[in-house]
Amino acid sequence: MEKVFQQILYGGDYNPNQWPKEIWTEDMHFFRDAHINSVTINVFSWAKIQPAEDTYNFDELDEIIEMLSRENYNIVLATSTAAVPAWMVKKYPEVMRTDYEGRHHKFGQRHNACPNSLVYQKFARRMAEKLAERYGSNKHVVCWHVNNEYGGECFCENCEKAFRVWLKQKYKTLEALNQAWNLEFWGHTIYDWDEIVLPNALSEELGPNKTAFAGISIDYRRFNSDSILENFKMERDAIRRFDANTPITTNLMGTYKNLDYFKWAKEMDIVSWDNYPAYNTPWSLVAMSHDLMRGLKGRPFMLMEQTPSQQNWQPYNSLKKPGQMRAQSYQTLAHGADTIQFFQLRRSVGGCEKFHGAVIEHVGTKNTRVFREVAQLGKELAALGDQFLGAENPAQVGIIFDWDNYWALEYTSGPSQDLKYVDQIHQYYSYFYKRNIPVDIIPVDADFSRYKAVVAPVLYMVKDGMQEALETYVKNGGTLVTGFMSGLVDQSDNIHLGGYPGPLRKMAGIWVEEIDALAPEQTNTLKFTDGTTSTCNLLCDIIHLEGATSLADYTSNFYADSPAVTKHEFGRGNAFYVGTQLPEEALAKVLDQVVNAAHVSPVIDEATELEVTCRTIGQRRYYFIINLTDRTLPLPKEFEGKTDLLSGNLLSAAEHLSPYDVLLVREE
Amino acid sequence: MEKVFQQILYGGDYNPNQWPKEIWTEDMHFFRDAHINSVTINVFSWAKIQPAEDTYNFDELDEIIEMLSRENYNIVLATSTAAVPAWMVKKYPEVMRTDYEGRHHKFGQRHNACPNSLVYQKFARRMAEKLAERYGSNKHVVCWHVNNEYGGECFCENCEKAFRVWLKQKYKTLEALNQAWNLEFWGHTIYDWDEIVLPNALSEELGPNKTAFAGISIDYRRFNSDSILENFKMERDAIRRFDANTPITTNLMGTYKNLDYFKWAKEMDIVSWDNYPAYNTPWSLVAMSHDLMRGLKGRPFMLMEQTPSQQNWQPYNSLKKPGQMRAQSYQTLAHGADTIQFFQLRRSVGGCEKFHGAVIEHVGTKNTRVFREVAQLGKELAALGDQFLGAENPAQVGIIFDWDNYWALEYTSGPSQDLKYVDQIHQYYSYFYKRNIPVDIIPVDADFSRYKAVVAPVLYMVKDGMQEALETYVKNGGTLVTGFMSGLVDQSDNIHLGGYPGPLRKMAGIWVEEIDALAPEQTNTLKFTDGTTSTCNLLCDIIHLEGATSLADYTSNFYADSPAVTKHEFGRGNAFYVGTQLPEEALAKVLDQVVNAAHVSPVIDEATELEVTCRTIGQRRYYFIINLTDRTLPLPKEFEGKTDLLSGNLLSAAEHLSPYDVLLVREE
Amino acid sequence: MEKVFQQILYGGDYNPNQWPKEIWTEDMHFFRDAHINSVTINVFSWAKIQPAEDTYNFDELDEIIEMLSRENYNIVLATSTAAVPAWMVKKYPEVMRTDYEGRHHKFGQRHNACPNSLVYQKFARRMAEKLAERYGSNKHVVCWHVNNEYGGECFCENCEKAFRVWLKQKYKTLEALNQAWNLEFWGHTIYDWDEIVLPNALSEELGPNKTAFAGISIDYRRFNSDSILENFKMERDAIRRFDANTPITTNLMGTYKNLDYFKWAKEMDIVSWDNYPAYNTPWSLVAMSHDLMRGLKGRPFMLMEQTPSQQNWQPYNSLKKPGQMRAQSYQTLAHGADTIQFFQLRRSVGGCEKFHGAVIEHVGTKNTRVFREVAQLGKELAALGDQFLGAENPAQVGIIFDWDNYWALEYTSGPSQDLKYVDQIHQYYSYFYKRNIPVDIIPVDADFSRYKAVVAPVLYMVKDGMQEALETYVKNGGTLVTGFMSGLVDQSDNIHLGGYPGPLRKMAGIWVEEIDALAPEQTNTLKFTDGTTSTCNLLCDIIHLEGATSLADYTSNFYADSPAVTKHEFGRGNAFYVGTQLPEEALAKVLDQVVNAAHVSPVIDEATELEVTCRTIGQRRYYFIINLTDRTLPLPKEFEGKTDLLSGNLLSAAEHLSPYDVLLVREE
Repeated sequence: MEKVFQQILYGGDYNPNQWPKEIWTEDMHFFRDAHINSVTINVFSWAKIQPAEDTYNFDELDEIIEMLSRENYNIVLATSTAAVPAWMVKKYPEVMRTDYEGRHHKFGQRHNACPNSLVYQKFARRMAEKLAERYGSNKHVVCWHVNNEYGGECFCENCEKAFRVWLKQKYKTLEALNQAWNLEFWGHTIYDWDEIVLPNALSEELGPNKTAFAGISIDYRRFNSDSILENFKMERDAIRRFDANTPITTNLMGTYKNLDYFKWAKEMDIVSWDNYPAYNTPWSLVAMSHDLMRGLKGRPFMLMEQTPSQQNWQPYNSLKKPGQMRAQSYQTLAHGADTIQFFQLRRSVGGCEKFHGAVIEHVGTKNTRVFREVAQLGKELAALGDQFLGAENPAQVGIIFDWDNYWALEYTSGPSQDLKYVDQIHQYYSYFYKRNIPVDIIPVDADFSRYKAVVAPVLYMVKDGMQEALETYVKNGGTLVTGFMSGLVDQSDNIHLGGYPGPLRKMAGIWVEEIDALAPEQTNTLKFTDGTTSTCNLLCDIIHLEGATSLADYTSNFYADSPAVTKHEFGRGNAFYVGTQLPEEALAKVLDQVVNAAHVSPVIDEATELEVTCRTIGQRRYYFIINLTDRTLPLPKEFEGKTDLLSGNLLSAAEHLSPYDVLLVREE
Repeated sequence: MEKVFQQILYGGDYNPNQWPKEIWTEDMHFFRDAHINSVTINVFSWAKIQPAEDTYNFDELDEIIEMLSRENYNIVLATSTAAVPAWMVKKYPEVMRTDYEGRHHKFGQRHNACPNSLVYQKFARRMAEKLAERYGSNKHVVCWHVNNEYGGECFCENCEKAFRVWLKQKYKTLEALNQAWNLEFWGHTIYDWDEIVLPNALSEELGPNKTAFAGISIDYRRFNSDSILENFKMERDAIRRFDANTPITTNLMGTYKNLDYFKWAKEMDIVSWDNYPAYNTPWSLVAMSHDLMRGLKGRPFMLMEQTPSQQNWQPYNSLKKPGQMRAQSYQTLAHGADTIQFFQLRRSVGGCEKFHGAVIEHVGTKNTRVFREVAQLGKELAALGDQFLGAENPAQVGIIFDWDNYWALEYTSGPSQDLKYVDQIHQYYSYFYKRNIPVDIIPVDADFSRYKAVVAPVLYMVKDGMQEALETYVKNGGTLVTGFMSGLVDQSDNIHLGGYPGPLRKMAGIWVEEIDALAPEQTNTLKFTDGTTSTCNLLCDIIHLEGATSLADYTSNFYADSPAVTKHEFGRGNAFYVGTQLPEEALAKVLDQVVNAAHVSPVIDEATELEVTCRTIGQRRYYFIINLTDRTLPLPKEFEGKTDLLSGNLLSAAEHLSPYDVLLVREE
Repeated sequence: MEKVFQQILYGGDYNPNQWPKEIWTEDMHFFRDAHINSVTINVFSWAKIQPAEDTYNFDELDEIIEMLSRENYNIVLATSTAAVPAWMVKKYPEVMRTDYEGRHHKFGQRHNACPNSLVYQKFARRMAEKLAERYGSNKHVVCWHVNNEYGGECFCENCEKAFRVWLKQKYKTLEALNQAWNLEFWGHTIYDWDEIVLPNALSEELGPNKTAFAGISIDYRRFNSDSILENFKMERDAIRRFDANTPITTNLMGTYKNLDYFKWAKEMDIVSWDNYPAYNTPWSLVAMSHDLMRGLKGRPFMLMEQTPSQQNWQPYNSLKKPGQMRAQSYQTLAHGADTIQFFQLRRSVGGCEKFHGAVIEHVGTKNTRVFREVAQLGKELAALGDQFLGAENPAQVGIIFDWDNYWALEYTSGPSQDLKYVDQIHQYYSYFYKRNIPVDIIPVDADFSRYKAVVAPVLYMVKDGMQEALETYVKNGGTLVTGFMSGLVDQSDNIHLGGYPGPLRKMAGIWVEEIDALAPEQTNTLKFTDGTTSTCNLLCDIIHLEGATSLADYTSNFYADSPAVTKHEFGRGNAFYVGTQLPEEALAKVLDQVVNAAHVSPVIDEATELEVTCRTIGQRRYYFIINLTDRTLPLPKEFEGKTDLLSGNLLSAAEHLSPYDVLLVREE
């Protein structure tokens, strides 16, 4: 792939505006020493740049950009529209959001603008224009960073009106709307577009995942994601009027629920994201998030933010241990990042993020563990140069991730309140991760033919066209894995009538007659064809074979002896169906068969607890070998005799990796 | 008793309006095959029938009723007023409720109308009239079903004004009101009726069970129950103008807290209710709810709703196991039901109840376990015919249940936050249930003389006249059981001064000096006169004997050696007092003495874990023998040689009942 | 010190207005029998005294005061302004508060007036004036009790405007304000005072301890405390216009968070407070609260309220056991109280406090345990006379308690959500308490030179001047103890740059490079110089020695071998720094060294589990010896041969104290 940047961007958020100028000079020295080559600026400066409705003042920003240009930094220039100025709220209260409870907010917080406020839109667009006009031709500006961590939702009257317009465009007629939302149920029939109200705590909802009409609530989420996306597009287009080429991004947030990032990525030049795992987040979930971010466009991404040491907003903000930040950074690169950026470069003196780590700590010296680790990594990245920028992450397995499904699954009233979308996807991802089998996280409309196996857990909503796409894929030799809570509803959250799993029934060769829900204290049991047994929980599909064969039968409850896991040869391929939630070992037993059937191969054959990932440019392969456990682990034989690009060491059979050790091996 | 229906109504909620007409024909065939003879229609069709303020359109309903009449179904005709149409909310926002937090709601949900909205009242009354006028003379309409699951509460200005009117009627003068609510406390004296505001989160309350003035809050609950009852009466009276005879009901919800069902039942021709136990609800609590519903009028009731398989709105919606729905249905009949109706007949395609089970599942065939079980039961009920319709449930024990007490007890600020009314009642009910001793759940103004024993747990509020009624009962030979948190307050929640348990003190022959509260991790101990010991918890009354004898003394804490449980001969009867919360075995030890003293006898003498219930018509007795455990149990000897009405089998000594097995034995 | 009262006030809240007059006469007899000499009246009588805007009616109060004066009671006269009358709310809705969620309240509850409502202020001031004018010259009125349990907060528009005025006075310029609040962060710069809004759920906050800008939120708390204090001062000054001498107080609530009691105490003639421990509150925390209340003015205080038996508003309201109320009362006197007053004298008949204990219970007789215990104590107190009124509580140890720190520490976003201010202080207090080492709880601006040791846990906010004060203290030979989360921010919650612990760094002789947070399931370990080991948790400072010596090093995590606890000789004194949360035994190991270094001595040398406290008048010493354990304990040898003032008994070596036993020994 084409390189977006000329080097690995290394740096992060920088807010000189919060500091006196004598500090700026100091910063420049510190950054050099840390091999920092990139800074992200102007993220929250709206109030400073535009102190009043008709007044713009770019003096300070000019000075900052001049300094950075002079020092030859790559500038990631933000548009500052993620927090509205106080004067704007006072003059135009409508720019603030109305929350889920129906309360219109006063000035405060950030990410606080109503996306459908014409006032906000006008001012945000104008700001983007002015910035692009002024700085768009500066060659040091290598990336535009629109707004910041878009998200949230608004339930104000402007949004309500915009929702009606959005619905009119989508459904054209009230008949279509009434049918899509099944409004005959509970006599909610709408006779006039103006009767439609936003679904929140004052209307159809009773909490974030409780709604009387999932059809309405899902459409609201689509609308809200689209509304905010329009804000992004508006700024993007404003920038493009003055800057035709510089890539434009906004920083995403992994599996963040509110925005349909697959739809967003289509509008972005490059995906960037902020990686903030908690102290107990499994590494596999971090890896999955990276793969999702890479999957959004199927291209390398930017790591826009990570902390060099600790966060502040988690319940418990543990320090990253020595080497952890480095290892985590290489994990990020391994999964497709072309930049490593921190929030932030200098730790703020006040406000709610003052306990968030930074490259330059409050002590203000270079004599800190954190600074030394940042500088060491900077040195290594500088030495690596641009050699793997744009490299690909080839994968034989695709796992489907879909925001419509995310929303719909978690809205279901029944059969169990414990269905969490990301957790369900992660259970499958984790199997492949532990075996160093690369995975692409893909959308529902992906080109499945690129994968030996496609995994679609809780594919609850099967939209138009997807049955055909999946059937074609399997018929042509593909291997599909799906399971409980799949195939149940269409894009409007109405049931696919005629027997579960609806459009997947034929391909899976089964009929699910009933779905039993188990409370947390309950389990069922099952037995595999090889005689081994396991527990299972959460949900139990009661399955009838219609061409499939059973891989495991229940051995308890009234549906003992009926199939729990099935496999169906369909055309030249196979469809696996996992009808209940399996513990890790039992799920592995099923997925081992999937991997065998699909001839999926890991990055290296040897089993290891090391994370081994591969990025490729043409025939050149970069192996990232990382120890993310807390134990010392031996080097896989495959890498004996190779050279570690980072240390220059020749790797012997005796080589062991301590916790957080990283090796980078290049093969041609 | 007189039969209300000519056969056991068997069927349930049916919403053909949600389906294309080709499905209607299919439904008719399915229903026949399932021996369904009754359908409940028009529950949520307001928006369809009245698409605008001045437009009514009965075409579809005409067609449905014609079809059902032609096919000879018993029609339970709902009035559709339980969910206001969207157009009405848009035009008259006042029809929606204002919630506990003071937020006026927009369109959404159901059971959403302000009971004191004149607009709502006008439209609801008119709808009932029009339906009655149109269909009242149709002989297939065997029952009117007004609204649906009435409940909730409203805190809008209309309700506030109506509350003042209600209070004026009740108290006549402000002096009386100030005294009843003890408003001198905290200087809350009211000098003008208009100073009264509704008690909610913006005034006297801090949560559903926290109030500064229980007197106000209890009166609000009475008012709210009355307000909604007025809605029912209004529709009922509107129907009666056009239909003089068809019974009119509305479906209740067991121990639902908000409505004083004893007061409601007086206005209903027949009680009906919806039975939705959770996966872990004890069978005794289900039985108690049935007995409460029967007790409301002291007559057989309708089971308006139950699920044939699973629910959707519980946290975990387990399937009913094979045979469970049948067993549960017979349990319902055993406790006094004359109908078995399901929600619903065909499973909806969308909306929040699509994962709620139905007779016809989404697969749309008869080839399902659920359909087969429904059909089998239908066949059995058809075979039974009308033989026990109207049969009675004779009981020697009455347990008092009282909504005023329910509300008042749970409002108490101190001595413990863990006082839950239904749980307290159920602890006593459960003793009798496990011994197959039939119980009537009775109101505070019941004719106690009909019972050998009257049990009144947590009879916290003793209203005017009740002391005399209970004393007369005991004096004349009755046996009364009461205990902690009894006799404390009058109908306005003001203390009966002069020593606890106030009006019960003389009869119980004790004085409770203090009430100790134990935290959940604490227990005390006690010793019975027979030397056996037990723990106790929650509350400990410190009792002085004033004529009573002690049945058990505390053996721990500073009140060790003082009585915990007492018995007092009073006139020709006995009053038992249980001054602390006892574990099951210890409570049984006390209640064994009660049963002995009162000569109460179970349905059959043999101890068994089977539920054995008896309904009678004159000398004819119907024994329902049900295995609700998960183990196989032997037939009680008493039934050896009898014939099971359901199977026609002669019951031998070797007969055993598997889980969910049911026998029905008739004796003359 | 000078005596404020002529005898130990013994009595409590009395509300004859809630009762018919025949009860009043009865009360007088009961009080005499209980040796009650004081009553607090008129606490909630506003609505009665002022039934309408222009109508005052003192007839009943006149009658009450006449009766009490005739009977020679000490009257504590309340001003009744703690609950606004209903008519006032109806006429002037602004007198009610707007809550944290932005909801303006209707009539209800108490402590409900907006402190910045001019209407409320006018009426409250006028009421205080009228009462003072009428009763100020009555010699039986020995104390004015303004309002009641001031607290809460308001977020209405009046408060918002007043907040801006308060800020203008504090900051003078917007530049100063913007800098103090660090508003450049997130671009929150304010350009006009009117852009400032109150920080609540609709603006900068997300919950009681979550704020985007702690600077704003802390200033709001200061403002709110000041606003309510202005209410107090206004009533106080109104009283003083008519009554020049009678002491004026209002009842405080121990460690109540919302009000800066050190600032309040400066405006009060005498501190009074309400002591309501829960059933499981440690005695050390009760003692600490007493010491805090005494510390507010450094003088004896009034115990305005305690329950004679049980409370009503706790989740579980256990009875005080026999002797417990007496022991607790002596504990109160021991820690500096000169009065013992109950809430309340007669138990109310209705309202939410009817299950709160009282001297005269609902039974209405003297024949109760509670009455007997009250009477016994009354007799003892009467016998003691006025001999130790005004006595001091000498202490060699001062523990700093500071409301600014309380607020700021609990607002921190990171490093751990489990930082609770009172708990942190109590961990240290508890060490001294268990060793009978008297402690003064002191403000940040105390005269440290009075103490051999000053303990300052979580001294998070170090305000201007404090560095100098502490350094001077230590240089001159003082011993200071501080630790993690200290020295971090200035009075505006902005970081002291240049290395933690900021202004304490030099004195502590250390630099804290990083702060690790441990989740609840995590612990680290450490080893003391004597080789003993311990766990530690919550937070772990990573410390570099800069002159200090290590008392304990970590033995786990990546900072194993770095210091966890340090000691630094500074001038002629020592500064100890405890860098992690230690379990009780390990903290004791550190504090033993502190006590040794500072030559701090306990009240008696002998170790005992008895609470032994000493009050002194000149050379006379009163030892309060109390058994607050549940085991019998031997008398310390020191008291052998002394006489117990309460019983008159000579104390022998064989003397043992049963649970709740109390001895009072006087030495000259």
